[in-house]
Amino acid sequence: MEKVRVVELKKSIFEDNDREAEKLRNELKERGIFLLNLMSSPGSGKTTTLIRTIGALKDEYRIGVMEADIDSDVDAKKISQTGVVSIQLHTGGMCHLDAGMTRQGLEELTEGEIDLAILENVGNLVCPAEFDTGATKNAMILSVPEGDDKPLKYPLMFSICDVVLINKIDVLPYFDFDMEKCRQNILLRNPKAAIIPICAKTGEGMEQWTDWLRTHLQ
Amino acid sequence: MEKVRVVELKKSIFEDNDREAEKLRNELKERGIFLLNLMSSPGSGKTTTLIRTIGALKDEYRIGVMEADIDSDVDAKKISQTGVVSIQLHTGGMCHLDAGMTRQGLEELTEGEIDLAILENVGNLVCPAEFDTGATKNAMILSVPEGDDKPLKYPLMFSICDVVLINKIDVLPYFDFDMEKCRQNILLRNPKAAIIPICAKTGEGMEQWTDWLRTHLQ
Repeated sequence: MEKVRVVELKKSIFEDNDREAEKLRNELKERGIFLLNLMSSPGSGKTTTLIRTIGALKDEYRIGVMEADIDSDVDAKKISQTGVVSIQLHTGGMCHLDAGMTRQGLEELTEGEIDLAILENVGNLVCPAEFDTGATKNAMILSVPEGDDKPLKYPLMFSICDVVLINKIDVLPYFDFDMEKCRQNILLRNPKAAIIPICAKTGEGMEQWTDWLRTHLQ
Repeated sequence: MEKVRVVELKKSIFEDNDREAEKLRNELKERGIFLLNLMSSPGSGKTTTLIRTIGALKDEYRIGVMEADIDSDVDAKKISQTGVVSIQLHTGGMCHLDAGMTRQGLEELTEGEIDLAILENVGNLVCPAEFDTGATKNAMILSVPEGDDKPLKYPLMFSICDVVLINKIDVLPYFDFDMEKCRQNILLRNPKAAIIPICAKTGEGMEQWTDWLRTHLQ
């Protein structure tokens, strides 16, 4: 096999955002608002998972959802049908949300009282991981068709998430996806990560996920 | 249905990169190098598609591949097994490649003579679309499990691509994916886009794709 040549390209640093995120996180704690930052690749099933999650929890908590998207409002429309407060954040082409942008969204969202605010971040496994939004907890979805090697290729995303949902387990028979290998790859990046296999379409595994949320919301 | 509130967040502008990209594109044309910029979400099948593409074209063209990744060298290792020149570009956490970064990679890649340089961009439907790499042509892969609505949600990516490969058509029976609706959504964003359904795993549709490349390489 030919040796792989590696060219290192330059990197950015985001100090101010970290400070802003910590400030927001503390403010939310004081106000009794739990902010969940939900991230994934495009098409991993964030919106479908959210709709199921809202259905299971909306009688227990006052929920508000922020749908971040570059340009459309497809998702916010879907979420609004669940009956919870839902707003669309247009990032104007930006590939992620930082704490300042999240704060702008929360100001619109929390005109009424809420217990659980959910940010559906831009579909992207790279940039959202680099910018702390100020969320109480970070969650991500990896779907079976994306492959069990993703924790090796997008290490930062997996390392910053408190919980990883492995979605679309209904199609496991049709893909070369090794659940055990995937778990190992995730734990290699983040030994503390909770890992929950789900199928947002059929509802399988959703109870374990909503139980995780209930535990952390207390 | 509750009305969706929209909050507009700020946008960036990248003037200098456009100039740098145009300069690189002209230089490549003079040197007889065709640079293909291949983009997609994580796990859409870029590397598998590339391996098939190389297999079909390596006796006709001198091919070199640049694998852009944040941290790993998994893909470059796979590509190097095909026998073509392959290098790994580490973006140091960056979510995309701009023309300057692409130029750095090409300088390493084109020590020998090549006809076709392929850049496998970072798996991301957002940022790579915003930065012209200087490529001769832009291609993207949308895989069936991601859904037929992606052109609505990531409009810029679809609008800048000359060709859209719709991959993983072998799993069409297991997903709610409407090929005709997908075509319409793509053409809405980009009426000139070539659309080629493929299955990189089985080889289906690959001849149409390699014919597209042959036509444009002349």
